[in-house]
Amino acid sequence: MSFLTKLDTVVTNNNSLLCVGLDPDINKLPPHIASQKDAFFIFNKAIIDATNDLVCAYKPNSAMYEAAGNNGITQLKKTCDYINTNYPKIPIILDFKRADIGNTNNYYANFAFKYLNVDAITINPYMGKTANNEFLAYKDKGIIILCKTSNPGAGEFQDLIIDGKPLYQLVAKNVMASWDTNNNCLLVMGATYAEELAQVRKIVGPNMVFLVPGVGAQGGDVKIFVTAGLGANKRGLIINSSREVLYSSNDKDFAEAARSKALNIRNTINNYR
Amino acid sequence: MSFLTKLDTVVTNNNSLLCVGLDPDINKLPPHIASQKDAFFIFNKAIIDATNDLVCAYKPNSAMYEAAGNNGITQLKKTCDYINTNYPKIPIILDFKRADIGNTNNYYANFAFKYLNVDAITINPYMGKTANNEFLAYKDKGIIILCKTSNPGAGEFQDLIIDGKPLYQLVAKNVMASWDTNNNCLLVMGATYAEELAQVRKIVGPNMVFLVPGVGAQGGDVKIFVTAGLGANKRGLIINSSREVLYSSNDKDFAEAARSKALNIRNTINNYR
Repeated sequence: MSFLTKLDTVVTNNNSLLCVGLDPDINKLPPHIASQKDAFFIFNKAIIDATNDLVCAYKPNSAMYEAAGNNGITQLKKTCDYINTNYPKIPIILDFKRADIGNTNNYYANFAFKYLNVDAITINPYMGKTANNEFLAYKDKGIIILCKTSNPGAGEFQDLIIDGKPLYQLVAKNVMASWDTNNNCLLVMGATYAEELAQVRKIVGPNMVFLVPGVGAQGGDVKIFVTAGLGANKRGLIINSSREVLYSSNDKDFAEAARSKALNIRNTINNYR
Repeated sequence: MSFLTKLDTVVTNNNSLLCVGLDPDINKLPPHIASQKDAFFIFNKAIIDATNDLVCAYKPNSAMYEAAGNNGITQLKKTCDYINTNYPKIPIILDFKRADIGNTNNYYANFAFKYLNVDAITINPYMGKTANNEFLAYKDKGIIILCKTSNPGAGEFQDLIIDGKPLYQLVAKNVMASWDTNNNCLLVMGATYAEELAQVRKIVGPNMVFLVPGVGAQGGDVKIFVTAGLGANKRGLIINSSREVLYSSNDKDFAEAARSKALNIRNTINNYR
């Protein structure tokens, strides 16, 4: 089953556009978890068990696991295996923002799609489509291309004007025109830039799905960007929240608190669909 | 000691601008190595022992190790530890082309500079300087920013014209003007685009160092790009070769063959300095 079909089914089943980012930070984990060897996996498992009926996807960020070295990578794999075994209907997005020459991208694809067996990845457009063909060839996987990112200073290059249009709009246009021949492309559109989100929705039409980071910790306002970005059938957004959900409580009730926060964000999003 | 000082010393000592890319591919390793559990490390160690007096740096590509999962990451660390212990004068460049929001980049920096203890990294400019401040703050590390990459199709966005100049030249200009406040920035300039290399050399002046991939397997011609890109004191280039050196022989003489190839490329480069 393709990523987009899997996503669509879970959006229906869980009535949710919320993606929970699995970004374990050893300094923020509850102390009774942080002290254990498999802290990341134990933490993730509890979060997943508590929120799996409320989300449309999980999105581990590769950086947090890499920072913990080979043991971090082991725990990332255990996390992906746990979701694939116990909640196989929920897609996994590996947020790793890679891109290199084609030969190298084959290895990054092996890491994501063979070793970890995730359903989708984020990639960087700077090296162009040809370099990324190795990713795009995975027809059943979601390839999520950075377009307008949520960070301060994102406009340094993304907003530069080319023939009257900012670069990020050309990225969106090219993805539609030539990258998406396998109907497996999505775009990263930061929640912190609602006007840009609306413009890109106009360019790509109602059917392309956006991964929207920047809710909560990064300051995006739910009502504004849901209104700006919603696509066909009141869908077309994967709205990610990481820190706000994961670290609602630093105590033994952390999973329960995360569930409560996830429920709250899911419902808030649904209010504006 | 800063990366650039370390680099300068080894360029003198080894009379070399050649960087050897440590990109182990399980399908290309000599069979007597490929069959071993620590194949990547055993292979790298032999290559390092055979070439350490001929290079100015080693450049492991993160992708090949990630594709082998947690064991791959272990072998990447063993490789870095081996160089740092036995050949501490030779800098290590981790080619991982990362970039994310600032909070995430802290973790990527921890992976590179704390877990692996490398001297330099490659990063992607698309998210802008502010997002990359976490990398740039490491004053003694080399931060190597993608400018004009060596792959076919690199121009899709990199060559787009903004106020009369292509995007890659604006990247070079901005790196000079505002990213390089700690004097730790370098640029990736593909060997396959010699004219672009010459133009960027004019923009950034003689002192900025370029990492130049694309020699050999990717088709860059040594004479043309050395002439186009050389900086102050007949230096300013780190010329990478990976596959051409590593896979000169597929038999028991692979390390000797790699040495012979590395010697040949180093001397060819020096002929045109």
